[in-house]
Amino acid sequence: MTRIFCLIALLVFNSVSFSSHSQLRKLIIDCDPGVDDAMALILAMKYPRFEILGITTVFGNAYPDQAVKNALTIVELSKKNIKVYQGASKPLRKPLDAPPDFIHGTDGLGNTRQPDPKITYQSKSAAQFIVDIAKANPGQVTIVAVGRLTNLALAIQLDSSVTKTIKEVVFMGGALLVAGNVNPVAEANIEGDPDAADIVLTAPWKVTMIGLNVTTRVKLNDEILSRIKNGNKQYGPFIYSITRFYLDFYKNSNHLTGGFYVHDPSAVMYLIDSSLFKIKKGPVRVVTDGIAIGQTIMPVLDFQFGLSPWTEKPFINAAVEVDTRRFLKTYESVMLRK
Amino acid sequence: MTRIFCLIALLVFNSVSFSSHSQLRKLIIDCDPGVDDAMALILAMKYPRFEILGITTVFGNAYPDQAVKNALTIVELSKKNIKVYQGASKPLRKPLDAPPDFIHGTDGLGNTRQPDPKITYQSKSAAQFIVDIAKANPGQVTIVAVGRLTNLALAIQLDSSVTKTIKEVVFMGGALLVAGNVNPVAEANIEGDPDAADIVLTAPWKVTMIGLNVTTRVKLNDEILSRIKNGNKQYGPFIYSITRFYLDFYKNSNHLTGGFYVHDPSAVMYLIDSSLFKIKKGPVRVVTDGIAIGQTIMPVLDFQFGLSPWTEKPFINAAVEVDTRRFLKTYESVMLRK
Repeated sequence: MTRIFCLIALLVFNSVSFSSHSQLRKLIIDCDPGVDDAMALILAMKYPRFEILGITTVFGNAYPDQAVKNALTIVELSKKNIKVYQGASKPLRKPLDAPPDFIHGTDGLGNTRQPDPKITYQSKSAAQFIVDIAKANPGQVTIVAVGRLTNLALAIQLDSSVTKTIKEVVFMGGALLVAGNVNPVAEANIEGDPDAADIVLTAPWKVTMIGLNVTTRVKLNDEILSRIKNGNKQYGPFIYSITRFYLDFYKNSNHLTGGFYVHDPSAVMYLIDSSLFKIKKGPVRVVTDGIAIGQTIMPVLDFQFGLSPWTEKPFINAAVEVDTRRFLKTYESVMLRK
Repeated sequence: MTRIFCLIALLVFNSVSFSSHSQLRKLIIDCDPGVDDAMALILAMKYPRFEILGITTVFGNAYPDQAVKNALTIVELSKKNIKVYQGASKPLRKPLDAPPDFIHGTDGLGNTRQPDPKITYQSKSAAQFIVDIAKANPGQVTIVAVGRLTNLALAIQLDSSVTKTIKEVVFMGGALLVAGNVNPVAEANIEGDPDAADIVLTAPWKVTMIGLNVTTRVKLNDEILSRIKNGNKQYGPFIYSITRFYLDFYKNSNHLTGGFYVHDPSAVMYLIDSSLFKIKKGPVRVVTDGIAIGQTIMPVLDFQFGLSPWTEKPFINAAVEVDTRRFLKTYESVMLRK
């Protein structure tokens, strides 16, 4: 009897969790689409318990104007009324690098040559939008950041109280004592603007880091992508199309066969089901110069000396393990949800 | 029959390996005693197939004058005719740090207050001695370096041909994608003079790195130390005595219970039996400034970009795994050898 009751309760709960609008989580998605950024946006658009208050864009996987255009393309595809705000066109201090067009294509969407979007972005800057929307919804807005952290740093510089009004920040980026992907110790989103990252990671707000420690443990393969292509008419063919070039990069770079890493969608997945990840807490600082530029460093041991850069810095949550099988299953089930 | 033959062959082989002087390996031991440096020196002195051509000292675990004094104390204990050469009293560029007296004691030998040695060190500098002895024995001299690498860098600056005349360098130091011991990513010998380390690791000679990846996998406990104390009258009581303070540090620092890491002796162990270690090959660069100062970085993947600091640098051998059980057995058997 108890078991039956639990089963019913579970079904009701699941049904509620997919349909109730009473507890929608308000999101800003900060991104630089980018193939996996596009996938992260679409995943967030597809999940029924999110309310996307706005999309902010930043330089990175594509040049600034291309990134904002790609975000608008995806909003058009969604048929949702989501406003897009353009943000930083360069890092705070270091010079702008050329986008990695050998990964994302010259158009940032796998050289799929999307038609120009009919909608346009807002005149307000990304940083100003973040400050304003957080103030209008105090303690309610989560930022999901899957690009360079420049817009978030600019928002703090614009109005430092944003760290109090924002509910939390979940970002894709960083690598803790694992190999990097743009230099031997650094991940691209952090290395792309290490000064901004250090500001964001040491600011007094709740921050969760979804880095290479977990994103390189999840490989999305073509079987899953094909099922989504066939089962999700709105987004499936688009995702399948933009991932062809990306998949080839992973194949040809000798890193990986049979799929690619799910970097940016992992940050959205954390908000869908945080129990997929194991979290470690500690202060994280970013290397801003030299051969280790962009490295994220969290102390592991109790040290007797040499710890000053981490002293009295806020603890962040860093994902260090992921349940790969359940991640892929959840991703597919959200994407195939009717 | 075959088994008996093998057994006899093995005994003969062991006997030969311990008694033949025909193929002695010529060593310079560069050190900063230091408790584990003292143990490394004694291990090398005890192993019958090494010929120690000289000991060079450097600042580090003790102030320069204390380090050379401690080396002389150990030479006196050995009753061997080994000359000692004092080397660098400070790093190439960064200021001299105070020695970690909370690990090695204010006298570098666990606050055991050894009497002043009667012998004295040579007037020739460590760097000059390295250059001269290598030239006199071309291709025959191995440097075992268990302190900051300043003397080796100075030898290269004095005469760059030393990289051709030295047979090989085996050093204790560094940490590859594992936690450091003086800051979150750096090991003490490298962080103590990162500029010297970068010179040594990128010079064109054969270099083997025995770093924290392996030294923190081997814990020497008091049972082994007690057996050596009782079984080796010459060195056992000395080792037991100098390790009391060191053992307490490891206990109290919450890192470790029931023993301590065998850092410096591990470099000597590599020369006794290299098969104890698994080696990975690649170029290694050292971070010389900033919060990651002293970190040793070897690229792990094939990168498309960002690799320039490692391009065309010589590959070194880095120990990444160790057979802990066999390491401790071999260490004990050498130390208890009659």
